[in-house]
Amino acid sequence: MMTSHSYVPFSLDEAADMVEKGLAAIKLPAGPAELYDPIRYVLSGGGKRLRPSLVLAACSLFSEKPRQALPAALAVEMFHNFTLVHDDIMDHAPVRRNKPTVHRKWNQNVAILSGDVMSVLAYHLLAGIPSGLLGPVLRIFNKTAIEVCEGQQMDMDFETAQEVTEEEYIRMIGLKTGSLLAASLQMGAILGGSSTSDANALHAFGLNLGISFQLRDDWLDVFGDPEKFGKRTGGDILSDKKTFLLIKAMEQARGTVREELLSLIGNKKVPAREKVGRVKDIYLQLNIGKITREKMEVYYKKATGSLEEVNVTEQRKRILKKFAGELMEREH
Amino acid sequence: MMTSHSYVPFSLDEAADMVEKGLAAIKLPAGPAELYDPIRYVLSGGGKRLRPSLVLAACSLFSEKPRQALPAALAVEMFHNFTLVHDDIMDHAPVRRNKPTVHRKWNQNVAILSGDVMSVLAYHLLAGIPSGLLGPVLRIFNKTAIEVCEGQQMDMDFETAQEVTEEEYIRMIGLKTGSLLAASLQMGAILGGSSTSDANALHAFGLNLGISFQLRDDWLDVFGDPEKFGKRTGGDILSDKKTFLLIKAMEQARGTVREELLSLIGNKKVPAREKVGRVKDIYLQLNIGKITREKMEVYYKKATGSLEEVNVTEQRKRILKKFAGELMEREH
Repeated sequence: MMTSHSYVPFSLDEAADMVEKGLAAIKLPAGPAELYDPIRYVLSGGGKRLRPSLVLAACSLFSEKPRQALPAALAVEMFHNFTLVHDDIMDHAPVRRNKPTVHRKWNQNVAILSGDVMSVLAYHLLAGIPSGLLGPVLRIFNKTAIEVCEGQQMDMDFETAQEVTEEEYIRMIGLKTGSLLAASLQMGAILGGSSTSDANALHAFGLNLGISFQLRDDWLDVFGDPEKFGKRTGGDILSDKKTFLLIKAMEQARGTVREELLSLIGNKKVPAREKVGRVKDIYLQLNIGKITREKMEVYYKKATGSLEEVNVTEQRKRILKKFAGELMEREH
Repeated sequence: MMTSHSYVPFSLDEAADMVEKGLAAIKLPAGPAELYDPIRYVLSGGGKRLRPSLVLAACSLFSEKPRQALPAALAVEMFHNFTLVHDDIMDHAPVRRNKPTVHRKWNQNVAILSGDVMSVLAYHLLAGIPSGLLGPVLRIFNKTAIEVCEGQQMDMDFETAQEVTEEEYIRMIGLKTGSLLAASLQMGAILGGSSTSDANALHAFGLNLGISFQLRDDWLDVFGDPEKFGKRTGGDILSDKKTFLLIKAMEQARGTVREELLSLIGNKKVPAREKVGRVKDIYLQLNIGKITREKMEVYYKKATGSLEEVNVTEQRKRILKKFAGELMEREH
């Protein structure tokens, strides 16, 4: 017979479903239309709801009631979408999740201001968490929000930088991608009643998983199977993006290989497919694919090592182990 | 002999000084430079520090220690400056406080992202208030932040609107200008230990004073003394801004006067001084100056009426009475 304390397994799918319903239940005013229509548009635009699902999943490690972390989960998703709206302006991105970006569908002012409101709405959602935990969670949220902005600024700085070191790059993706994954898990844990050390271990798990995840993203753009990747590979090469692969190749290349690589970076005259092919050849010659996969593995192991430290049963950890595994096996 | 409970009068100058020192003591990281240099630039750029001073002043009505409201005061000033940075992008404003705006001195992306960080920093400062009051104050802050954005959106909508009613205009300036003044006083009161009804009365005082203040701003742009106003009058007329004066004139004008007014609005061919002169003549003919001053007076009286309701001694109220009086007598 089940006791009231027995563990009811909670899946990421269930978490994503809870998030989706929570987002749909957010009541926004009808007007001004140009302020709230874009927010409705963005929130209903799908996305994997990874970060808020992790908030709930982390909470489920320590509590039978993951729903109590829903306000924080929704706040994280709202904040994440706010950063996408503003990043898309800054990056001049025309499309997001197969739909026109807000600044393209409406205009730039609409994207700035509705983004601003989304960031405030994130805090509005956060204000719904129990008052005893509000202070600590708010402080984590603020620290993380600032880190995400710092990561975005570093990413933009890299576009015009002469040289970017591996260390700087890892720091950037840790801030831009790892930080919010880490904080999602940490906040979820705290809201589930975890100890500080367990919450910190989950933060480390998320941070390193995020770094590993971004390295895999860089790798997939060059070595992914275009069928499974869902788009042609080589986009980063064509836009001369300073990914881990390019940074590593620049570090390793000598002599004529280096000259060849330097002649290709920023070169808009070489036809697209030729440029991708020639850079990929250099990567193969320098073993960059293998070096990247090894680096991914280093951060993945750091991540799973941190998960080991968390003081809950293996059964409870399964949801996050499965998540980490799937994330690293994804082909898109 | 003074007792420890005797009231030490607190002036707005002292409040502004406390704010200035508080802002100077905020430690920002050195880098990324393009993220934090603009924030230092904006915060050191002066400004009257009205809103944060009102937070402290409202606190001083109920407490001998206005300093305890300093984190909230700094949060309000940080938030206000964030809105200015983003508004200046949206309005294509080249100058703010006699210095180039952030998007002009750096670029637009820098202005978007450093603005975003300022909004997070506002919440970071807010997180410094005592945990027992954090929830209520956070909720007021969020509500107000959203109202300010709604006001800005309405203001932009008005630019292209065929017709704006007096009611819509008053609502817009209440949101864009009144709301943050109101919340500053309300939050300061709560942090000083006031009752809810006193805090609400101060909110009403600030809201109506803000509306009155904005009406005076509209009036000064046409009827102010250019010497004291610090700039040539008529700027709103030249930019066809739908101020209270224009809205009222459009409502009142009939026949040939209406035709004359309609022919001038949006007309870029009429020389600047001539256009200002002709619109001003219409305002004089229709008694718009007097109507505006009467409306100012209505909101000013509402404001002071709310201040009367606050349950503290006359001596304590003096700081806000003086403030209200000075605000309405200012010539710039």
